[in-house]
Amino acid sequence: MSASNHLIEQFVDRRELLDGEFLTVLRDTVLLPNRAHATREYIVHPGAVMIVPIMDDGRIVMERQFRYPVQRVMIEFPAGKLDPGESVLSCAKRELHEETGYSASCWARAGQMHPVISYSTEFIDIWFAKGLTLGTRKLDEGEFLDVFATTPEQLLRWCADGTVTDAKTLVAALWLQNVNNRTWTLDWQLSDNLSA
Amino acid sequence: MSASNHLIEQFVDRRELLDGEFLTVLRDTVLLPNRAHATREYIVHPGAVMIVPIMDDGRIVMERQFRYPVQRVMIEFPAGKLDPGESVLSCAKRELHEETGYSASCWARAGQMHPVISYSTEFIDIWFAKGLTLGTRKLDEGEFLDVFATTPEQLLRWCADGTVTDAKTLVAALWLQNVNNRTWTLDWQLSDNLSA
Repeated sequence: MSASNHLIEQFVDRRELLDGEFLTVLRDTVLLPNRAHATREYIVHPGAVMIVPIMDDGRIVMERQFRYPVQRVMIEFPAGKLDPGESVLSCAKRELHEETGYSASCWARAGQMHPVISYSTEFIDIWFAKGLTLGTRKLDEGEFLDVFATTPEQLLRWCADGTVTDAKTLVAALWLQNVNNRTWTLDWQLSDNLSA
Repeated sequence: MSASNHLIEQFVDRRELLDGEFLTVLRDTVLLPNRAHATREYIVHPGAVMIVPIMDDGRIVMERQFRYPVQRVMIEFPAGKLDPGESVLSCAKRELHEETGYSASCWARAGQMHPVISYSTEFIDIWFAKGLTLGTRKLDEGEFLDVFATTPEQLLRWCADGTVTDAKTLVAALWLQNVNNRTWTLDWQLSDNLSA
């Protein structure tokens, strides 16, 4: 990181600004590269997982969910926060099953994204799933969402025309397009061979 | 929206949890579709703009910036928050010039993204810029970042191999790939003809 020393900010002090039911906010005092001080306020997040579930016919499993902060019904891929101590793959399997009812026999980790690098520690691990078997979904209390299947082509049209604006779902579309084009490759693993 | 009534949550009550130097957090009580109550905590954000600046030779202008919440130097497109009363295009022109020193003679609005629909009102408007002229950048006090040029192909390799994990930049890569493939089209306008 020596080539980046002129960019890096160092921790000096920390104060918890908020310990809410869902959100924790910290304010850190930091030392800037020019030795001045500044403050950084940010959300502490446990991390999350998004799943791109692919059906045997190539269609993808998606959701419609009302997202209160943006006051819209959003088209999204299944996703959810890590429980304490939970691995990303366990979380992916749990969220896929809870939200859609599907289990998957094959999994591949695509990558990771940081949704909001200016004010949250959140990362979202991106997983693809195939070999889907439908069971019964178990939504969290107070969770309401529709599950539906569509084609990758329809998803890309929705990304182009502004129907899809959820960042994680747009990033999943980038992955899906390049995987389906065979430009990017995934390392598929049988679920049974993967340590959760 | 009648087809979505089984998903929509309605405002009941609001409390401000935090009025920080940078972050404002609200907690709303909402009425769920099943008439139960729940709480939603979220950040109030003025919105932001990201710019994809394309040089005459097809290379793109990007930045390296240390992002304290994720403790990493991130590769990103230029972006910034709207000032009070500022239009998205004025913000795009201002941020491009302040952060990189470039002005652009042609602009095209690609679309909009919501980086974190579960706990922020933030949107990011996505603009492409070309016809670039280099002037002198004017970074905000306490802002440190490197500006560099690279090819769209290199950016896509960085997206695939995990070097780029910033969500807005990954979404910009989706746009850039499809615009360069001529799958998606942009409506370019001369800067002088655009009301800021």
